[in-house]
Amino acid sequence: MRAVVVVTGDEVLEGRIGDRNGRFLAQELFAAGVELDAVQFVGDDMAVIRDAVASGLGAGAELVITTGGLGPTHDDLTMWAVAEAVGVPLVADLALAEVVRERSSRHARWADISPEVQHHSVMHQASLPGGALVLDPVGTAPGAVVAHGGSAVVVLPGPPSECVPMWRSAAGVEPVASILARAGGGGVRVVRVANLIEAQLMEYLATLPPDALSGVRMGVCARAGELEVTLRQRQGTAAADAVADRLVARYSDDVISADGRDLDTVVADALRARGATVAVAESCTGGLLGARLTARPGSSEYVRGGVIAYDNAVKTALLGVPPEVIDTAGAVSPECAMAMAEGVRRACEATYGVSITGIAGPGGGTPQKPVGTVFVGVADASGAWAEHLLLRGGRDIVRERAVAQALLALRRALVAS
Amino acid sequence: MRAVVVVTGDEVLEGRIGDRNGRFLAQELFAAGVELDAVQFVGDDMAVIRDAVASGLGAGAELVITTGGLGPTHDDLTMWAVAEAVGVPLVADLALAEVVRERSSRHARWADISPEVQHHSVMHQASLPGGALVLDPVGTAPGAVVAHGGSAVVVLPGPPSECVPMWRSAAGVEPVASILARAGGGGVRVVRVANLIEAQLMEYLATLPPDALSGVRMGVCARAGELEVTLRQRQGTAAADAVADRLVARYSDDVISADGRDLDTVVADALRARGATVAVAESCTGGLLGARLTARPGSSEYVRGGVIAYDNAVKTALLGVPPEVIDTAGAVSPECAMAMAEGVRRACEATYGVSITGIAGPGGGTPQKPVGTVFVGVADASGAWAEHLLLRGGRDIVRERAVAQALLALRRALVAS
Repeated sequence: MRAVVVVTGDEVLEGRIGDRNGRFLAQELFAAGVELDAVQFVGDDMAVIRDAVASGLGAGAELVITTGGLGPTHDDLTMWAVAEAVGVPLVADLALAEVVRERSSRHARWADISPEVQHHSVMHQASLPGGALVLDPVGTAPGAVVAHGGSAVVVLPGPPSECVPMWRSAAGVEPVASILARAGGGGVRVVRVANLIEAQLMEYLATLPPDALSGVRMGVCARAGELEVTLRQRQGTAAADAVADRLVARYSDDVISADGRDLDTVVADALRARGATVAVAESCTGGLLGARLTARPGSSEYVRGGVIAYDNAVKTALLGVPPEVIDTAGAVSPECAMAMAEGVRRACEATYGVSITGIAGPGGGTPQKPVGTVFVGVADASGAWAEHLLLRGGRDIVRERAVAQALLALRRALVAS
Repeated sequence: MRAVVVVTGDEVLEGRIGDRNGRFLAQELFAAGVELDAVQFVGDDMAVIRDAVASGLGAGAELVITTGGLGPTHDDLTMWAVAEAVGVPLVADLALAEVVRERSSRHARWADISPEVQHHSVMHQASLPGGALVLDPVGTAPGAVVAHGGSAVVVLPGPPSECVPMWRSAAGVEPVASILARAGGGGVRVVRVANLIEAQLMEYLATLPPDALSGVRMGVCARAGELEVTLRQRQGTAAADAVADRLVARYSDDVISADGRDLDTVVADALRARGATVAVAESCTGGLLGARLTARPGSSEYVRGGVIAYDNAVKTALLGVPPEVIDTAGAVSPECAMAMAEGVRRACEATYGVSITGIAGPGGGTPQKPVGTVFVGVADASGAWAEHLLLRGGRDIVRERAVAQALLALRRALVAS
């Protein structure tokens, strides 16, 4: 089974917004065992969208999935493009138009819009390739599943809040359901290891018997502070399991997970299992660690809150960092990181306090403390400790890596508890 | 001038990481006036990468840019793929190998790796298409510019911290510099308007004279709480300027900017211009507003810090929200939002306090306060006020929109001051 994803929209192609649907669909297809040939980003150009869909079908893809271009305006042309690609007319669905009209009427300020424009918008959004199966709109835009030979074109809207549930609907209807069922779903094992670089992994793999990797397609991805090793097998999982077991044995202490869980999930699970809570004290990351910890539903079970101590006066006023620590060791120091972690643990009455203080750049570096110098602190009932990091990269990357290292430090404290 | 971007990597195609280089390059090319035909995501498969590069060249693109696949491992095959696509041999550059070796030697734990693997890795990374111009590595991987007819293939590494500066190097060398110079750079005007939907904009545009939009390609992008209208002209800017002027006149109070600045920049500029500071108090967004405000270099000039008041006890302890406010009005209420904003303004000694409290979901909703109910509070020396929002979408989207609405509320307070 093979698939092509076509993400439409000038705003994505011009780089004004990042795409999330392409990534979501890639994950879905990967888990379903469907081989994704390409994710293609194209502008709001009917002919280009049409050609991308047609060339995916022509190349033998069983699934061609488009996102975007289903809105009410003149540059929302995906339905027309798909109709042309599969060689059917674009047909206005009058019953669907009523659904669109009803849904649009709940839209903010719709009442200010003239009946002519309302009618035009509704008919535009209710016109689908002839013979298409309608995917009920989550927002105002209906989607479609268009069967073509043994293949299917799935037409989804651009807003991720609409695209995600409508993909799940599409996956349950024919012929998409049968295509996904035939794909079968190969075995995938993901092992995540902290403090490891690709070259070291290669070195280890070279020591294995020659056939250890046979039948397994390995992918390696370095991310902030961790290496993600994906072991993929087209059918079954025995060979991938065997490699995963070897990696777990080799890197035991540094293994974040061998079951696909990412660092965030591992930390959340460990906090829950221990009935523990966490509070954060952030300087250079400005709330990023708190935002990441609270991104998960149900995080209020174990996140108490925290303090964004960007200015030194806030470190002293809200976290009780002694001014003499800042004066002598400096705000970017192990002493300050420990005092921040202890302070936020106490202020928020949490089991663990986790702190980050550092120099994210581009300014603020000194020869002694260059840009990328970060201290991560952890405090629990037994005391506090800090780690010294020197992170490379621009401001955004230093901040992201600092957050990842803080989560790793918290995980180590949880494992040791 | 036309371009194709080929983003390589199983980790991107399988959706395990989001891509940033594709977006960055799209922005660069757009600003340079280069027409970007497509951004294509492909896996770590030599033949697929080769075909993507060759088909871009075959279709007449003057620039084909690849990212990723320049690491030391067996699945880093982009240089080989490019060599095959342009029909030249892959040649090991011994002088370059010394550079790679020297840079790799600074890498963490490199000392643990055997000389055989070191040699193999270095020679792999130092092998380039014959005749290519070397782009000096920022990390360990060199890039390349390969001239082919009147076109150029630019080969960049995957980590954004390396890709971005190496693209800037590539843009300065021939034939890339000449290709970009010939593109000329069309005129682009971006007008951002808050509290506007596409259908309303359409309605307004329909009232304009028929030729008002001639020569202008308009793109509309709805983002959390705002509409971004891009007016693009291939040569000159007069027509785009005229449309921008009309939009500013029509939506005056709701115009965020007419000069391309986004909401973050407008808020930062306004804080700086007034010598004002801000502190944040966040419940359901858990630090996201603080993280967004501090994402900009130099934000320590105007961001004091804040409190992540996820648990109600933290709202009381660190922000001084009276327990009776939480008991009677609830933690998700205008009273609580105002008390949080006032509390954080006082605790952090800031000119403005901005707060967010709400129900991001998926759990926690009630008939009176469904998921998506959010209150944004602002406090200054004159007092505090709050706005009631009902945001649609999943947890991530509600959190993002709440942050955007908080920035809009702060901007209104700044404009009124």
